[in-house]
Amino acid sequence: MLPFTVEEYKGRLAKTKKAMEENGIETLFVSDPANMYWLTGYDAMSYYEPQGLLVDLTEDMPYWLGRFMDQEGARFTTYLTDDHIHAYPDKQLWNPAESHVMDFIADFIKGKGWDKKNIGVEMDAYFYTARWHERLTRALPDAAFHDATNMVSYLRAVKSTKELEYMNIAARIIERVMANAIDRIGPGVPEKEVGAGILYDQVMGTEEYGGDLTAIPPITPSGDRTATAHVSWQTEGCYENNQLVYMELAGVYKRYHAPMSRTIYIGQPPEEIVERSKICIEGINAAIEATKPGVTCEEVERVWATTIGKYGLEKESRMAYAVGCAYTPCWPERTIYFKPGEKTVIEEDMTFHMMPGVWKDGFGVAFTETLHVTSHGAETLTRFPRKLFVK
Amino acid sequence: MLPFTVEEYKGRLAKTKKAMEENGIETLFVSDPANMYWLTGYDAMSYYEPQGLLVDLTEDMPYWLGRFMDQEGARFTTYLTDDHIHAYPDKQLWNPAESHVMDFIADFIKGKGWDKKNIGVEMDAYFYTARWHERLTRALPDAAFHDATNMVSYLRAVKSTKELEYMNIAARIIERVMANAIDRIGPGVPEKEVGAGILYDQVMGTEEYGGDLTAIPPITPSGDRTATAHVSWQTEGCYENNQLVYMELAGVYKRYHAPMSRTIYIGQPPEEIVERSKICIEGINAAIEATKPGVTCEEVERVWATTIGKYGLEKESRMAYAVGCAYTPCWPERTIYFKPGEKTVIEEDMTFHMMPGVWKDGFGVAFTETLHVTSHGAETLTRFPRKLFVK
Repeated sequence: MLPFTVEEYKGRLAKTKKAMEENGIETLFVSDPANMYWLTGYDAMSYYEPQGLLVDLTEDMPYWLGRFMDQEGARFTTYLTDDHIHAYPDKQLWNPAESHVMDFIADFIKGKGWDKKNIGVEMDAYFYTARWHERLTRALPDAAFHDATNMVSYLRAVKSTKELEYMNIAARIIERVMANAIDRIGPGVPEKEVGAGILYDQVMGTEEYGGDLTAIPPITPSGDRTATAHVSWQTEGCYENNQLVYMELAGVYKRYHAPMSRTIYIGQPPEEIVERSKICIEGINAAIEATKPGVTCEEVERVWATTIGKYGLEKESRMAYAVGCAYTPCWPERTIYFKPGEKTVIEEDMTFHMMPGVWKDGFGVAFTETLHVTSHGAETLTRFPRKLFVK
Repeated sequence: MLPFTVEEYKGRLAKTKKAMEENGIETLFVSDPANMYWLTGYDAMSYYEPQGLLVDLTEDMPYWLGRFMDQEGARFTTYLTDDHIHAYPDKQLWNPAESHVMDFIADFIKGKGWDKKNIGVEMDAYFYTARWHERLTRALPDAAFHDATNMVSYLRAVKSTKELEYMNIAARIIERVMANAIDRIGPGVPEKEVGAGILYDQVMGTEEYGGDLTAIPPITPSGDRTATAHVSWQTEGCYENNQLVYMELAGVYKRYHAPMSRTIYIGQPPEEIVERSKICIEGINAAIEATKPGVTCEEVERVWATTIGKYGLEKESRMAYAVGCAYTPCWPERTIYFKPGEKTVIEEDMTFHMMPGVWKDGFGVAFTETLHVTSHGAETLTRFPRKLFVK
């Protein structure tokens, strides 16, 4: 049932330990669900209560620490042996003033004799709250805490053969999802029908492979709502004639995401929409062309900015980011971004969502792709007509 | 487009200010997405980057602070006037070492002259990370910080007429979703078909009302996987003969959730599953009967524990929790729980998910309902046969 071989997990652990050594960290508490999954296979929707992995330089296997009712999930989904799975009773969720789950984790660390060590925590991981950190540091006064935000996430940037296989399946899924969604859109069609169809198709996947839910729900604004970036279909409205729609969606396979966006116009598109679409497509084409090993992210961003700048357009936000396995609330790896000042050198087998959406003057368009960096360039995993669709 | 009247929002703000006064808080930073929605209507999937509301005792309207590309969403979905919507440029996400989004929020607070005040923050809100807190407190050295975790969430416990209307619609949705899902389950049916169908039905809602995605994805384990609490369908397996399935799902309308669980056996159910189902149903029936205004939550929990205890069964986890509007990663309000020691007195128009699932001896069953406390008792919003389904 494991999505990767035990050897691959051991290789990831070795990389993590090396990064820990380089950062002066002896014990690492990993709470980012995607990092937990990448390191051990742990896969459940249990991230809404405290849980995490402990990785120590002196040990050959991480420890899973989590809730009583989720420990069987750790047995089903990880390669960890039973003695590396430790659950806290629900009572520790009940009276945090008396005993907090972080006290359980601190006690485990003390039991191991790690409480005077250099301990890394992911200060900016989505579910590592200010309260968790306060309780953990209070319970371990002799430890030296280090911010390990994204340390493991950076190790995920270069993908393995198996990871690329999963992202390719995810790309096949999003191609189907997008084709069906565009087919369904039309004047008088309830927006909820298109939304429901997207979710259905995302889960049905391909004939051979079942898909999964995306880390962020479908982004599918229409009309005036295209002026904002993160809204879904309208639960009770219908699509109308002379309306703009854009969709930022993903296919997912074994938690690996392949995002893609397309823009649709219902009716005869106004010149400014046709024009902006052309510019954005010229921009992404140029940026894909510029992406290859050895180039920095800011160089590619510059190509994009220069291309659209010729037409007086600019984009306020980042134009690409690293992508791979992800959990709610979103799918960026939160590490490498294509933006001014980003000196990261692009490497073979990195994967990016190139996301040059432009929201401006009351409307937005987006034509985006998932990229795989090859030995000499970049190819899109997502293969779908790159154009403004007119319905 | 607002889901509630401006008067209702103003009433909520007044309650919030009263709670602030009682807790010695002068300025409140609200980052919990459900609290942001409840206070202003703000509804977008933008919670993966820093955002929040600022409520000050001296002001009549909260301020929305968020990302540049999301500010139009604040205009569409809230009752806030333009001068109460303030966006940070994406650059503040790029170089957190130099200037963090929390510096933007701190600067806003300074600009208002609130930086020497008693400031409340939701220390344990899902997206309020340790890093955010560290940066905010560092940028406001003269402020006195107070933990306001769940302060606003508690105000959401008693529901208004309109909120109950939405939860009733959500209940109609989950009844349809569950009926269709149980219909579809059978030996040889791909699990992904049932999962895809659930999502489709959740969004299609009823004839009249479109539904929405749930704060936690469908929980639908089968076979051995029923021993754990938070897993979905298998992406590539099929249901088998002589297999146990339970489903914890919700209907959602305008972000208001009505959760419900049922257990299904494919084939002739073994005696231990029939027996445990009977006990759990007897237990929830007794607990519903015991729920009424004036009773404490722990008294109801005791009724449940005593009822199932007669048969030698016990439940390790909380047996009910407050429920209402919610965003990812989960739908409990995280305030009132039915557990030993919970002295909260039940009030009219509170709503709970009574969740007496029991996971033990390698399998789990669950029969759960959304309850509405009436003037003299409690009724289930969800109306669906409370039994073990046999297929």
